[in-house]
Amino acid sequence: MTKIKHILVLGGCRSGKSRFARQTADDMAMDKKIYLATCVPTDREMEERVNRHRDDRGPGWSTIEEPVLVHEAIDRACAQAKVILVDCLTLWTSNLLFHGKDESGVMASVDLLLDALNRSACPVILVSNEVGYGIVPENSLARQFRDIAGLVNQRVARAVDEVIVSMAGIPVQIKPGRMEP
Amino acid sequence: MTKIKHILVLGGCRSGKSRFARQTADDMAMDKKIYLATCVPTDREMEERVNRHRDDRGPGWSTIEEPVLVHEAIDRACAQAKVILVDCLTLWTSNLLFHGKDESGVMASVDLLLDALNRSACPVILVSNEVGYGIVPENSLARQFRDIAGLVNQRVARAVDEVIVSMAGIPVQIKPGRMEP
Amino acid sequence: MTKIKHILVLGGCRSGKSRFARQTADDMAMDKKIYLATCVPTDREMEERVNRHRDDRGPGWSTIEEPVLVHEAIDRACAQAKVILVDCLTLWTSNLLFHGKDESGVMASVDLLLDALNRSACPVILVSNEVGYGIVPENSLARQFRDIAGLVNQRVARAVDEVIVSMAGIPVQIKPGRMEP
Repeated sequence: MTKIKHILVLGGCRSGKSRFARQTADDMAMDKKIYLATCVPTDREMEERVNRHRDDRGPGWSTIEEPVLVHEAIDRACAQAKVILVDCLTLWTSNLLFHGKDESGVMASVDLLLDALNRSACPVILVSNEVGYGIVPENSLARQFRDIAGLVNQRVARAVDEVIVSMAGIPVQIKPGRMEP
Repeated sequence: MTKIKHILVLGGCRSGKSRFARQTADDMAMDKKIYLATCVPTDREMEERVNRHRDDRGPGWSTIEEPVLVHEAIDRACAQAKVILVDCLTLWTSNLLFHGKDESGVMASVDLLLDALNRSACPVILVSNEVGYGIVPENSLARQFRDIAGLVNQRVARAVDEVIVSMAGIPVQIKPGRMEP
Repeated sequence: MTKIKHILVLGGCRSGKSRFARQTADDMAMDKKIYLATCVPTDREMEERVNRHRDDRGPGWSTIEEPVLVHEAIDRACAQAKVILVDCLTLWTSNLLFHGKDESGVMASVDLLLDALNRSACPVILVSNEVGYGIVPENSLARQFRDIAGLVNQRVARAVDEVIVSMAGIPVQIKPGRMEP
């Protein structure tokens, strides 16, 4: 049995990370592709973005919306799917905090996610935002969120087989990279 | 006839991107170098920065200020110039929004820019800011600007032959890169 | 006599840069490792982070707190130490501004730092934040800080032998890199 490989696609806002993740999935399989959206649109701006993304995906895709229990959704979906695309971990982190979890609660959820990746029968591509390269936010909640989102990215990056940073739509592979981490 | 090559230099604030772009132009030609500034200084802080940048450039350079119609400026300048440096696309995007364009209006301007690059008789080096790696701005206009600036970077990055990210003054080539985009 | 090599580790917030710097120092020496903290905790949030970092470091480390006169601390420590880790330059820059220095005052302090690196008898690993990849801050002081922090990173990056960018805990070497800067 070949080891299932998982991929993390990182990037800033509008860096082309979702598009690259989708293309990577399209290269893997013609059908049975699951788009696992962590976004539950709460305003018009978000809803438009969600619809635009859905239109961009071709046939062969089906969508699951799961804002919080991503590990359970992966467990359920992986038996039937050829590839799962989780979009995105930063919003998932935000949802966990909104549901009352603190840093250690989020880290426990990351444990569950990494366990689900370990037992997944199909490859999982995870998209996440890099949010820590601006100046320190004045808002204490924003600082906390930025810290936790960074920790989530670190833990998932360590667990997966491949990490890509998308910059201006150009994928840059950083794991496996030139340095042995 | 050799294909004219164009270069995009991306980077954060004070990442050395303008200096790298200038050095690249200086390596290409001794004279007939056009600095196409999209910045029209509106306060003292900006004016000081513009003057500092002008002092940094050596002889062989002449300056054109064009906040909006960059494609026309390239069309006019490329016949006489050996190289054109456009500094920068982020401010140009900001100027387009300020002049009342929405996202699709900006994208139409990008079409015109890419057409001008296609017919340019000399290489064009374009500088742009990467602004999408901080936390989501609370301000809705700032979010919109960040989105559009990211899309502009993606479209120009796809069109040019070479993309450099400048980090702490160190140029990192991401296109052509290790991965075939 | 072999040339002493210095390393700059850049990264966003929670990008794993301090951990990578510590591991690099641990790979260099078993003991006589100096942690030169530029952080003088002024609130509980900072104090917790400082203590967490201290717990993460193993034996063989001793800590010096020096918010401003980093060059003097390096001069004093390098005779006895096998490696010095300065964490971090961004906070040091912030401390210099807080102590009334302007941009040219900070640059004079960078001169002193680079001189101290030049005469250091042991390798120095310097950690710094990349803060210039978000949108332009509305606050004028934040803009100034971002500018100066970026310039400090550029000057130190030019002076050291190796520059690493840590992204989601993954070290990416950018100097020496594929392009000759």
